[in-house]
Amino acid sequence: MHPDLKSKVMTAQEAAALINNGEIIGISGFTGAGYPKVVTPALAERGTKLKAEGVDFGISFYTGASVGDESDGVLARAGIMKMRLPYQSHADVRNSINKGTTEYIDMHLSHSARMIRMGFVPKPTLALVDACDVTPDGKIYLTGCGGNTPTYLQIADRIIIELNTHYGDTLKGVHDVFIPELKGNVPIYSPGDRIGKDYVQVDPKKIVAIVEVKLPDNLKPFAAPDDDSNAIAAYILEFLEHERKKGRLPNDVPYQSGVGNVANAVLGTMAKNPAQAPVALYTEVIQDSIFDILEADKLIVASGASVSYSLAGQDKYMANAHTKDWKSKFVLRPQEISNNPEVIRRLGVISMNTALEADIFGHVNSTHVNGSRIMNGIGGSGDFARNCLLGFFMTPSVAKGGKISAIVPMVSHVDHTEHDTMIFVSEQGLADLRGLAPIKRARLIIEKCAHPSYKPLLQEYLDYGIKHSALHTPHTLDKAFDFHKRLIETGSMLG
Amino acid sequence: MHPDLKSKVMTAQEAAALINNGEIIGISGFTGAGYPKVVTPALAERGTKLKAEGVDFGISFYTGASVGDESDGVLARAGIMKMRLPYQSHADVRNSINKGTTEYIDMHLSHSARMIRMGFVPKPTLALVDACDVTPDGKIYLTGCGGNTPTYLQIADRIIIELNTHYGDTLKGVHDVFIPELKGNVPIYSPGDRIGKDYVQVDPKKIVAIVEVKLPDNLKPFAAPDDDSNAIAAYILEFLEHERKKGRLPNDVPYQSGVGNVANAVLGTMAKNPAQAPVALYTEVIQDSIFDILEADKLIVASGASVSYSLAGQDKYMANAHTKDWKSKFVLRPQEISNNPEVIRRLGVISMNTALEADIFGHVNSTHVNGSRIMNGIGGSGDFARNCLLGFFMTPSVAKGGKISAIVPMVSHVDHTEHDTMIFVSEQGLADLRGLAPIKRARLIIEKCAHPSYKPLLQEYLDYGIKHSALHTPHTLDKAFDFHKRLIETGSMLG
Repeated sequence: MHPDLKSKVMTAQEAAALINNGEIIGISGFTGAGYPKVVTPALAERGTKLKAEGVDFGISFYTGASVGDESDGVLARAGIMKMRLPYQSHADVRNSINKGTTEYIDMHLSHSARMIRMGFVPKPTLALVDACDVTPDGKIYLTGCGGNTPTYLQIADRIIIELNTHYGDTLKGVHDVFIPELKGNVPIYSPGDRIGKDYVQVDPKKIVAIVEVKLPDNLKPFAAPDDDSNAIAAYILEFLEHERKKGRLPNDVPYQSGVGNVANAVLGTMAKNPAQAPVALYTEVIQDSIFDILEADKLIVASGASVSYSLAGQDKYMANAHTKDWKSKFVLRPQEISNNPEVIRRLGVISMNTALEADIFGHVNSTHVNGSRIMNGIGGSGDFARNCLLGFFMTPSVAKGGKISAIVPMVSHVDHTEHDTMIFVSEQGLADLRGLAPIKRARLIIEKCAHPSYKPLLQEYLDYGIKHSALHTPHTLDKAFDFHKRLIETGSMLG
Repeated sequence: MHPDLKSKVMTAQEAAALINNGEIIGISGFTGAGYPKVVTPALAERGTKLKAEGVDFGISFYTGASVGDESDGVLARAGIMKMRLPYQSHADVRNSINKGTTEYIDMHLSHSARMIRMGFVPKPTLALVDACDVTPDGKIYLTGCGGNTPTYLQIADRIIIELNTHYGDTLKGVHDVFIPELKGNVPIYSPGDRIGKDYVQVDPKKIVAIVEVKLPDNLKPFAAPDDDSNAIAAYILEFLEHERKKGRLPNDVPYQSGVGNVANAVLGTMAKNPAQAPVALYTEVIQDSIFDILEADKLIVASGASVSYSLAGQDKYMANAHTKDWKSKFVLRPQEISNNPEVIRRLGVISMNTALEADIFGHVNSTHVNGSRIMNGIGGSGDFARNCLLGFFMTPSVAKGGKISAIVPMVSHVDHTEHDTMIFVSEQGLADLRGLAPIKRARLIIEKCAHPSYKPLLQEYLDYGIKHSALHTPHTLDKAFDFHKRLIETGSMLG
């Protein structure tokens, strides 16, 4: 650290004491990468103590997306997270929301920074940021994520930095920080284009505390894809091949993949295929599966909002960042750029996202159990699904040992409408819904994606509607949620 | 007409005879402007005759958006419209869809041209286009709409032109034809920017017929806004003023307004306000209300996909096109450009669209009655709502003399999710939903937008959910459609 900054160094407890009751805090962090790890636990401790003293202590917590237990978990368990946006996936946060302690604003990830800058939601007054370097003139070098961090740093009156030496210089220079104007182009024409600076410039006077840490992102070990994921990945790859043969898919379009097993299986299979052309990612989250592609020498570039590697993956990246020049293969962007509709459409991204449930007419629920209980949030799935060239929604056909069907007559919450979905895939098969009217979609989804144990019930619902309803989308409102009602009453959608 | 083209001139009946059974026809036309008026009736006649002879005759009908009775009406009544995309609003087409005769693919208007060019839906083989001029080297000058016409002309193997002399040269030069590449920028930085040519270039060999006509777009007379529309318009204008005072809305952002009375009331009120700054439109449909703005000398530019004027409005435009240089104030674009997400976001458009019904948690139904019966289609509402700077959804709080509430516990079909809606307005009031969690949204929508006769029922639903459901979105699935069920059973949502 530069000697001029030494005077701002303090402990996590001292920094946490600077945070006011009711403060709106904008933090770094995106899908478990680059989040604060010591000031938030100290804040949770302070909040717990104040609450024990009878103070109604609470803060609003703005992030990039989901963050680690040291940020989300500790604050939720302390009961001091009054408001949360724009995405979460921690069990304790979810519980806090569903019991009404935390208000949650579930937003498209690409929308949040602009909404905040415009003042359409209350502006964060304090930014709390994991950084790998900071200079006396206010250049802040981020760690594993772009997220909403540049906007929080720009807007906040005060900045607390967790100066994290764990990654050395392996993430320095990887970032491309660009905050779009209200008017003006986002001039990315190729997934690897760099259009900004590799640091965030702030007024150094705003930096009120620097807390020294040396800690990795605490992401759980990488799990190999299971059979369902491998089956779904195989259907997707076969379909892409089919589309290429039909001349409907250019070779040079980049991929986006949501978080999880299927994405890993798709990239893993690509890496193993000797005929696979080199691939570019224009995605949100870069995960361990990228290493297979890198080691097969098939990566053009990976652009994303975060590198969310397991602990072993982080070690692997750091070991190869310089020696094999892996560092030059990555671009980390603010999430309004990684998920930018303009760029996604322009590049012709192939998009793969997970559905929580999907209905026979093509709508997707990504967020709510039984229409009411929030799971995680919409994340970037809408940014990509709406604007991609070719979009997949993936889900195993059943969950909980067959008690829950992922294909239902009507989803209990809509996050992606029939107008925004193209292709559904389960381990049973793939349904290409493009250019199909609702009844044809329903027949195809039941045939290709539903689990055999649910096909008769779904077909019965469709047949009843065709007999009794209007023939555009033959729904029957008093039967539409029978699957969900049986689940609530009996514990199984089969009844 | 140039003498070299004379050999292609024929009657409407002769041209209609060139259309094959099963042909996929891409026509010009957008919201009642610039559609074919003589070949389609001749085709309907031919189809009716063939059907009487036992031939299973039918065609697929791709348009820009809704088109006049001489296109949509005649083909639907003849029962030969087997497939239709991407938007319609004709009662006979709607009936044909809901009884299962016509398959309807309801698409975002900005999506359709690219989906078609990429071959994701079957490609049109024949283009049928209203034009004001054509040259021997294949320059086609369009009339009142951009629509999907450039793409249909580019893709089709054969072209039939209705050469329409009604508008003289008043629409020539108004168009800006730009078809975006799969990759590449849409370089519009100001609503009036011109980035293409004022004609569509085709291979003249593809032109197989020219049919001479002199007919206006048959659009119904302009109706003055009613009390509800004026009330809604007043809330919107008051809110914009409030946002400007709070520094949350730049002065120079353009407006988009959906079709209808409220849009007319908003523009009409702006025109009458001496303090109103000049306005620009970056919209889909330009209607008669633009004349108030023009006459008040407050129009910077109006960019859209069509000029959908009443018959009187068309006369007015033609009378002033040259004498007052009104012509220079307009730019007509392909709908993938007028509705382009990239440009809408970049310009910071203020968007106003109509809801069919809205629910207390912020979802909007634009398309289906009781979740089943299609009304019109999503049109461009999603293109604008998702990407605008500030978005309004407008609806009178009740319909059918109070028997239908536009605010319901759960919409029966979702076209715009909670993530894409910002502000609801009825004649009762305005609810600013930005930055609010679902329960707060529900309270505000019930308070501000619902009709007093439905407030107790909506509040009861919310209270029950808060007691019995998860507290993120407290829905109760077995009561969610009680409003709709009462309507189906008793003819009124009040029961």
